[in-house]
Amino acid sequence: MAMEIERKFLVKKDVWENWEKEPPHYLRQGYLFKDLVKTARVRVSDDTGYMTVKGKTIGISRAEYEFEIPKQDAEDLLSAFCDTVVTKQRYIVPFEGKIWEVDVFLEQNEGLLVAEIELTEETETFTLPPFIDVEVTGDKKYYNSQLAVKPYKEW
Amino acid sequence: MAMEIERKFLVKKDVWENWEKEPPHYLRQGYLFKDLVKTARVRVSDDTGYMTVKGKTIGISRAEYEFEIPKQDAEDLLSAFCDTVVTKQRYIVPFEGKIWEVDVFLEQNEGLLVAEIELTEETETFTLPPFIDVEVTGDKKYYNSQLAVKPYKEW
Repeated sequence: MAMEIERKFLVKKDVWENWEKEPPHYLRQGYLFKDLVKTARVRVSDDTGYMTVKGKTIGISRAEYEFEIPKQDAEDLLSAFCDTVVTKQRYIVPFEGKIWEVDVFLEQNEGLLVAEIELTEETETFTLPPFIDVEVTGDKKYYNSQLAVKPYKEW
Repeated sequence: MAMEIERKFLVKKDVWENWEKEPPHYLRQGYLFKDLVKTARVRVSDDTGYMTVKGKTIGISRAEYEFEIPKQDAEDLLSAFCDTVVTKQRYIVPFEGKIWEVDVFLEQNEGLLVAEIELTEETETFTLPPFIDVEVTGDKKYYNSQLAVKPYKEW
């Protein structure tokens, strides 16, 4: 089993706009299943499909199982079974030896920018890039599974 | 999308016992998620893991998406998230140009033997092997997802 240990922050838009960055990936994802202890997510990232099962978050960690699946199957699962699809551009940003993922949400979540860093242990330290704003780790309304049902534009 | 079109029958045990057959596969499977319109199943078959999403059965057909996953991930998902695991031996039986799967259930479902044939269209015809007993296609209590929650020994 893989454990996902992740911290999440809002992004200062003015700093981010002037940040030099590589072109983003385009992600579309939906939630096939969601219960009290786990979710199953389907994602299309550029030309690849993924199915991901995640356990309940405990502290800042959770179990994660990710499988690559055919893109067409991922598309079919999204259209057959997911009422809401979350879309975003994902920028990969190296900063002081760590990799940040900055998600610029689109459509119903347009206006929301979130930066995430994946850690190998909960106590791992790192330097915050200048575009980082307040931390929102553990705030459920920023969970992508929540953004699918209660998008940013409806807050 | 793949469509699964399947008919299911009980098995005459005396005929089956004397049937010449190849050694079976050993299957362990559980249901990660189940809602009104779909299920997600995790299976270990011999040395391979599978994740399968199936839609609601309409007539004798349903959408099916199956993905091979690492065996260890399948084992972990079964132990972390599936309360009940259904175990069975699966025999692959060629008969008059068709392939039958005969499942001999174990543990909580011991005593139950079910034969399935997968078809390419609903109206396809085929010859019943001598070990075939009554048809149970569409009878929900024989769904593997049901056998996980209400096993044969409790009927």
